[in-house]
Amino acid sequence: MAASDIPSDNSAALAAQAVLLARPVTEERRMADAIRVLAMDAVEKAKSGHPGMPMGMADAATALFTKALKFDAADPRWPDRDRFVLSAGHGSMLLYSLLHLTGHAGMGIEDIKNFRQLHSPTAGHPEFGEHPAIEMTTGPLGQGISTAVGMAMAERMLAARFGKSLVDHRTWVIASDGDLQEGISHEAASLAGHYKLNKLCVLWDDNHISIDGDTAVSFTEDVLKRFQAYGWAVKRIDGHNPEELAGALGWAQRSSKPSIIACRTIIGFAAPKKAGTAGSHGAPLGAEEIAGVRTALGWNHPPFEIPEGIKALWEQAGSRGSGTRRSWLKRLAKHPMRAEFERAMAGKLPDNWQEALTAHRQKLAETKPKLATRVASQQALTALVPNVPEMVGGSADLTGSNNTDVKGIPPVRPGDFSGRYVHWGVREHGMAAAMNGMALHGGIIPYSGTFLIFSDYLRPSLRLAALMGTRVIHVGTHDSIGLGEDGPTHQPVEILPALRAIPNLHVFRPADAMETAECWELALRRADGPSIMALSRQGLPALRDDAGENRSARGGYVLAEASGPRRATLIATGSEVSLAMTARATLEAEGIPTAVVSLPCWELFNAQAPEYRAEVLGTALRVGIEAALGFGWDSLLGPDGVFIGMTGFGASAPAETLYEHFGITPAAVVAAVQKRL
Amino acid sequence: MAASDIPSDNSAALAAQAVLLARPVTEERRMADAIRVLAMDAVEKAKSGHPGMPMGMADAATALFTKALKFDAADPRWPDRDRFVLSAGHGSMLLYSLLHLTGHAGMGIEDIKNFRQLHSPTAGHPEFGEHPAIEMTTGPLGQGISTAVGMAMAERMLAARFGKSLVDHRTWVIASDGDLQEGISHEAASLAGHYKLNKLCVLWDDNHISIDGDTAVSFTEDVLKRFQAYGWAVKRIDGHNPEELAGALGWAQRSSKPSIIACRTIIGFAAPKKAGTAGSHGAPLGAEEIAGVRTALGWNHPPFEIPEGIKALWEQAGSRGSGTRRSWLKRLAKHPMRAEFERAMAGKLPDNWQEALTAHRQKLAETKPKLATRVASQQALTALVPNVPEMVGGSADLTGSNNTDVKGIPPVRPGDFSGRYVHWGVREHGMAAAMNGMALHGGIIPYSGTFLIFSDYLRPSLRLAALMGTRVIHVGTHDSIGLGEDGPTHQPVEILPALRAIPNLHVFRPADAMETAECWELALRRADGPSIMALSRQGLPALRDDAGENRSARGGYVLAEASGPRRATLIATGSEVSLAMTARATLEAEGIPTAVVSLPCWELFNAQAPEYRAEVLGTALRVGIEAALGFGWDSLLGPDGVFIGMTGFGASAPAETLYEHFGITPAAVVAAVQKRL
Repeated sequence: MAASDIPSDNSAALAAQAVLLARPVTEERRMADAIRVLAMDAVEKAKSGHPGMPMGMADAATALFTKALKFDAADPRWPDRDRFVLSAGHGSMLLYSLLHLTGHAGMGIEDIKNFRQLHSPTAGHPEFGEHPAIEMTTGPLGQGISTAVGMAMAERMLAARFGKSLVDHRTWVIASDGDLQEGISHEAASLAGHYKLNKLCVLWDDNHISIDGDTAVSFTEDVLKRFQAYGWAVKRIDGHNPEELAGALGWAQRSSKPSIIACRTIIGFAAPKKAGTAGSHGAPLGAEEIAGVRTALGWNHPPFEIPEGIKALWEQAGSRGSGTRRSWLKRLAKHPMRAEFERAMAGKLPDNWQEALTAHRQKLAETKPKLATRVASQQALTALVPNVPEMVGGSADLTGSNNTDVKGIPPVRPGDFSGRYVHWGVREHGMAAAMNGMALHGGIIPYSGTFLIFSDYLRPSLRLAALMGTRVIHVGTHDSIGLGEDGPTHQPVEILPALRAIPNLHVFRPADAMETAECWELALRRADGPSIMALSRQGLPALRDDAGENRSARGGYVLAEASGPRRATLIATGSEVSLAMTARATLEAEGIPTAVVSLPCWELFNAQAPEYRAEVLGTALRVGIEAALGFGWDSLLGPDGVFIGMTGFGASAPAETLYEHFGITPAAVVAAVQKRL
Repeated sequence: MAASDIPSDNSAALAAQAVLLARPVTEERRMADAIRVLAMDAVEKAKSGHPGMPMGMADAATALFTKALKFDAADPRWPDRDRFVLSAGHGSMLLYSLLHLTGHAGMGIEDIKNFRQLHSPTAGHPEFGEHPAIEMTTGPLGQGISTAVGMAMAERMLAARFGKSLVDHRTWVIASDGDLQEGISHEAASLAGHYKLNKLCVLWDDNHISIDGDTAVSFTEDVLKRFQAYGWAVKRIDGHNPEELAGALGWAQRSSKPSIIACRTIIGFAAPKKAGTAGSHGAPLGAEEIAGVRTALGWNHPPFEIPEGIKALWEQAGSRGSGTRRSWLKRLAKHPMRAEFERAMAGKLPDNWQEALTAHRQKLAETKPKLATRVASQQALTALVPNVPEMVGGSADLTGSNNTDVKGIPPVRPGDFSGRYVHWGVREHGMAAAMNGMALHGGIIPYSGTFLIFSDYLRPSLRLAALMGTRVIHVGTHDSIGLGEDGPTHQPVEILPALRAIPNLHVFRPADAMETAECWELALRRADGPSIMALSRQGLPALRDDAGENRSARGGYVLAEASGPRRATLIATGSEVSLAMTARATLEAEGIPTAVVSLPCWELFNAQAPEYRAEVLGTALRVGIEAALGFGWDSLLGPDGVFIGMTGFGASAPAETLYEHFGITPAAVVAAVQKRL
């Protein structure tokens, strides 16, 4: 027997299915059947996809959309709607079917027919931006449930700010076994329990099946007991029983804790052979099974045709929230904070957001303080956070090291969401996902803190932020061997290239306090994607005394021009820019006219006109300097350039010793230039 | 109040401490005090480090090392020793103190004095390889406890293979709050419960303090209940009480489940002011507090001097296992499987390991099958796994997609560890950490499977593998937009560069079945670091009919030379090599002599002599082709090269449509060459 051939005996599932199918067909059953048939037919037509989950969870989704979810198909972006997150994103046809059936514009039957085709909104997994009712991109397991925690936190925080008359909605999640196996689900669920997010409810598709067969081959924990340990309310129901579903949804709405409903379901429900097996999970059912489903359900309609009566019932559900929405609009119209609410939800910064920062930059130009950029970052935040009420900070239990807190800004506490700083605990991944959720919810611009090295722990959520284009800002301090004694486990050497490789992520590595303030301005202003700030532990001299133009905005610029025709251009980022300046002084003294280019953001620099880039980089010998691996630098240095940096992992020693040890010194730069010239 | 200024009232801790300090001083207390004083003095001398944890856990560590841990300081690599993992790696002085006190060679008092200095074995965090008794590198939270799960699995599997007379040891972990907050701890603990790893015991330093203050600011879950839900045995004790500690260690040794002991401790125990506060966690205590500790403990010895009596007691503990080890050596000497055991533990491959693979490669050369490289990988595994009994496969619930299983190789099951395939569940991170643990334990060469995109989920463990130099092999299938309809969440575009950026990781991307077999040979042969295989979902034509030399061993080679003096060199990897061959045919037909270079492993190619690399890459126009971002390709292409690949995230559509849509086609390659020439 091969390892994967674990028998997945579905005789019990088929027997249970037979009992369920023998019951009288209700309106609710028919509505759910419409989902089932659309899902299996669309997957069949696309020749790929996941029919099993939509067919299994159709009853639960029907109950949720007809009885509990507050929404109005006429305005899927209504700010006070309930959020619905399909964490089990592979079951995307469940969501598309629901959106189509409830009458959402932009999700016609042609879109369903074009499931998984280029330029169709019905992508293989739900993609944020493809349709306004898709709350987020899901597919990578664990992300949906964890992002939903951030949405639920955002709701509480905005309710604290704007009041219950404007903000009073729930967050619903459909999650799979896989979602709950992923580590991120632990971080997120622990946070949700800690903050008592009682308006968050997870419907767990407890179908006992994962790709490798029966979940029992690898997943035997007591999930509900685990969630109880996190402080959740838990309930187990038959996921095909409308009464139990309705009861559980009501129970969740009354809960004083976050809630999880284990919906025991049969994956691929109604498939005569494949129901209850991994075989219905991720591949078309095939013509024979599909015919069998139609027979079993008594569904005599051709593919992609929904009987009018059933469609009408669904559209009724789609407009169920219309009155509620209209009342809300009236309340909004009269609300004293209306303009502020609309501004925040639209992601527009307050008119005066830059004022204090501009004054701060003026002061930096005058005083030229030597500061670690993590401390400079705290100063920039001190100028920004009080003036940008949607900014919400935090740290993954490294507040004092990340310097992400601001005096006078209180923390969020269980039961008190008026604060604007989150103690995330040592939960980088859950933090990043929740931040995505806050940004997606709207009304909040989240920023975080951890050591730069631990961006690896949150990378899947950061990738999703880049893909979705959400405005989240991560602070990564201790950004090189400059952190010293903590050693190679804590010293990022490959992190900068690995981050620069992510599309649509801006990686900022400012060189001094002035650039740090500039980079914060740029990160905050950026509305269409995430940013990460790589900041030093160690103090760095001020390099700039000009506070006018935001010079970091072009990504790179000539910080110091050569005294004569350039013979060398030293190109550096962050803490190595001051090192380059020291080297330049020596070279100039030796009669070698040398320029220094600071490159705080490669992505912005690469977006400049080729002429500007060529002018900045020059035609003289190019020397790249960065206390990280050179991977990616060739694009800037060309074949004749020299790179001074790391060639492997770091070591444990005081920072100055390490810079010497690894040969990242002004003397090494000078020697490299001399050798080449 | 600033967000971080959460008051950390330690009056209760100080009161409890006073009671404990008022008790009569026992030998055990004195032994623990030796750890406390060494730790605080070493941190003070280094001017950085973490005194709080060693001081708090000194009693627990003393109980463990004097009563439970099976070890012999005379041979720290004794294969049947208990493994001890300091998951809370920041408390490294706890480990160094224990190794020094128990009389391990290579850990003299000078090494303690050189804590955190360059070239000293006493790095800021424990570093594997710096001292033979350091079982693994720790520091990134959650890694230790999760790696320990793999060690405990390895013990069970080797016991199943070689018998209890050779393999019968435990795995002990000291973990912190942070370890248990990390998501990876969930994956690992769930696995340990599933597999009933009763010889794994975690001592949790339940000190109620993390960097941001009282753990209550973010961490209020019921940890023990959560572990019960995983199927663990749980116990709560006073971590400063020797009787309770001894009792709990015995209880753990008798447990039929993995066990966790919550040791309620006072961080920074004996510090008159800072005990019980985050202030004792990560910085030197300062002269005043240090003097106060000496007074409180009644310890009148200067720094780095341990009274002879106490040192003698510790050395006695260090040789406590000496008799057991000698008996074991006698058993080994007479054991029928001795040679095989020693071979496997030494990481040497069996004599015949290559035979079937060589035959397989012969056959491939003859039959030239068109295969997805993930299927080719399965064929290579079929030739390898039966002949290499230490190979243990698995998948994070994608067995049928990753093709990592081999017919006839049964899975590991709870209570039956004779199998060699692990159903890891959807737990990529826990899987990778456990694989590190298996490799570190010795006697196992683990390989895994997941989608390449989800390497992001396991990256922190992969980085540790690279840093430690452990032989683990990851299989990442569905390695590009070639996976098609699942869309951008599942399509790696930045993953290849992000992986290539990790030092000491070999990234293999074979072009056909032959190269896949070659790459498996190379990955398996590699004893000093991890490898990852990027494999296609889609079928790829055979490109090679030679089975002699392993041509992938040089990382890159000329697959097809130009018919005349080269005018263009097409450089490609994986699925794009056959695309390059098609383009070459057109270009040659148009009279443009064109070579194709296959580059299955950049790291191996970069290790070749410059002459070889120059010869392969040639001086003609270079065109790089890879269905991924071009980040990093400049180093191969130079300033005049052309790159054909992705420029951002993918999309959901059939694979062929996507290749057209993103312009990664033979026609695009031909056009690019024509335009440049």
